[in-house]
Amino acid sequence: MRDVAIVGIGQTKVGEHWEKSLKELATEAILGAIKDAQVERVDSLYIGNMLSGELTGQEHLGALVSDFAGLRGVEAVKIEAACGSGAAALRIGYVAVAGELADFVVVAGAEKMTDRPSEQVTAALAMAADGDFEAQSGMSFVALNALLMRRYMYEFGVRHQDFAPFAVNAHQNAVNNPYAMFPFPVTVEDFRKAKMIADPVNLLDSSPVCDGAAAVVLCPAEMARRFGERPVRIRASVIATDTIALHDRRDLLALEGAALSAAKAYQQASLGPQDIDLFEVHDAFTIMSVLSLEACGFAERGCGTRLGLEGEIAIGGSLPITTMGGLKARGHPVGATGMYQIVEVVEQLRGQAGKNQVADARLGMAQNIGGSGATAVTTILESMD
Amino acid sequence: MRDVAIVGIGQTKVGEHWEKSLKELATEAILGAIKDAQVERVDSLYIGNMLSGELTGQEHLGALVSDFAGLRGVEAVKIEAACGSGAAALRIGYVAVAGELADFVVVAGAEKMTDRPSEQVTAALAMAADGDFEAQSGMSFVALNALLMRRYMYEFGVRHQDFAPFAVNAHQNAVNNPYAMFPFPVTVEDFRKAKMIADPVNLLDSSPVCDGAAAVVLCPAEMARRFGERPVRIRASVIATDTIALHDRRDLLALEGAALSAAKAYQQASLGPQDIDLFEVHDAFTIMSVLSLEACGFAERGCGTRLGLEGEIAIGGSLPITTMGGLKARGHPVGATGMYQIVEVVEQLRGQAGKNQVADARLGMAQNIGGSGATAVTTILESMD
Repeated sequence: MRDVAIVGIGQTKVGEHWEKSLKELATEAILGAIKDAQVERVDSLYIGNMLSGELTGQEHLGALVSDFAGLRGVEAVKIEAACGSGAAALRIGYVAVAGELADFVVVAGAEKMTDRPSEQVTAALAMAADGDFEAQSGMSFVALNALLMRRYMYEFGVRHQDFAPFAVNAHQNAVNNPYAMFPFPVTVEDFRKAKMIADPVNLLDSSPVCDGAAAVVLCPAEMARRFGERPVRIRASVIATDTIALHDRRDLLALEGAALSAAKAYQQASLGPQDIDLFEVHDAFTIMSVLSLEACGFAERGCGTRLGLEGEIAIGGSLPITTMGGLKARGHPVGATGMYQIVEVVEQLRGQAGKNQVADARLGMAQNIGGSGATAVTTILESMD
Repeated sequence: MRDVAIVGIGQTKVGEHWEKSLKELATEAILGAIKDAQVERVDSLYIGNMLSGELTGQEHLGALVSDFAGLRGVEAVKIEAACGSGAAALRIGYVAVAGELADFVVVAGAEKMTDRPSEQVTAALAMAADGDFEAQSGMSFVALNALLMRRYMYEFGVRHQDFAPFAVNAHQNAVNNPYAMFPFPVTVEDFRKAKMIADPVNLLDSSPVCDGAAAVVLCPAEMARRFGERPVRIRASVIATDTIALHDRRDLLALEGAALSAAKAYQQASLGPQDIDLFEVHDAFTIMSVLSLEACGFAERGCGTRLGLEGEIAIGGSLPITTMGGLKARGHPVGATGMYQIVEVVEQLRGQAGKNQVADARLGMAQNIGGSGATAVTTILESMD
């Protein structure tokens, strides 16, 4: 087993791309990453995506995108793990390079969600939950998160407005991200007044439906200095699972899969949460941010909202999160999200995050979650400079 | 990189399983493989599937199935490469074990297609083709294969009835396979009189819509003798791609992706087509068998039908194919097919193929194809006895 580096990144702006198809978005990100890396060969393409079949009428994305991107012939498959598909694809690519089965691997995440009516998108997203018990009962993902949030507030005596800092921070950081869907600030007052979606989850607790694609190029760390600029080492990449249905959890407010994934990642990297300089959290909903922060050991059980209230999650805080806007404000094209998180951590570790740069960032972590925590992918990256 | 062995196999009968859900089928195959292998630990689960979202309203199969099968916590993702999903998942599992990133990996393929109206299944299958050009124009997969077959007949002066031996052989072999969907023989006369589907493709040129799941357990070859019985070594596992749309091919009658995949597999295993004792071909349509046989070097261009006409493809012939019934008669639950092929090759190499046993079989090969050849996965297995 050898060390693996990220030597190129590419991404499209997140938003409603009515003029671009899924394969065009994916190709834009892939060619951007290849150009950034300046590699001359690609051995394989792993593309994370959840909903291409349901929302764009297209499967077989591996062959489709490798063909369109000029990579015809390479090994190419689609990797699906609901909203965790992006980072899951990174894990598959990491395994191939770490295990010496491939040298140059492109990993992409791509999703196109805005071409269909919103009720169809809501139903499609519910395919990440347990179809026989949750989706069948009419539970959408907002509803599942509302259950979690309500229970969390009750159990730990937390007020709804205590979640506001996560939305405010994400939007603040998106202002300086040219790829963000919502590059404008929101206030605590906006959060309080936001339209209710599924009580207690309101509009500003929730990430948007959107289109986007992001990609990276991997190669063996020992070759990394020959390509791109300021390579970043993958210190850990771990997928773990939990029960798919909430009612099967031992503890509704503990994401055991996320905790397992983080614990294994820390072990793989031989470090702990105190060593992490920034964290891209899976803020599909504010409650998911809080549960992920707790699962990863950044906060005690029931105390996740304090990190926001005490200002620790801002760029200058002790644990900057959603540094380029997160799922909330950069946007959440579901199968692409995990790759956006990775691309953004790389930007931070390269010192290319502009006004959002976390000072002296050397170790960055991302946790990408599928469903209500049924899949959790934790990635730890380190600057090689 | 280390050698990888298959130490357990499991499969469900192929057919219309109105009483079993997709996760139940997958779990039946997975638990069968684990029991056969007698392993006590599983590190990860890779599940090949194409249409769970479109036809069963369920994505996130990795987490769903690992949970249901009692493997909660393991790394688990779905691998999609159209009808090549099954063997593509095997490749991903192979990479993990060969590269020393995992020791005990379960690879499954599962598909449930019979719960929806046939026009919806036809449309869903067309998602394996180029949506913008082929599916959009109303081309179903039968239609795409009809184009190939018509052109092949014209180009090489081959008659339609020359394809009959592939259907006859597949059905003959299915008679002795307890897991086959169509365990009955058909004659050349039946083939001639079969209902036309899309001229010149008739019913007996075509594989059926059905449900099924198959699975294997992988472990390092050096540990293989501790588990299961008569382990089989993976000598090669290669995915290659081609253009997704037929109109982009340099040569309509040469499956370049399949040829590339086979050439790389022979290179990886340091052997050639003459060394192969049996071949599980992707006979989704008889024309696809012929093109795959030619791409793999078992027949010259334009001569693939001769292997059938001369009896070489029968159990006692020089190159037995579809030895347990193939896609035609065992059945073609699309995302599971690649894993059925692997399970059947293992049965042959273990000497467990009963009346269909290929004498002294030591080296078996399978080629699993996605779309009209856009993805091709070639696997070469060898008995370790």
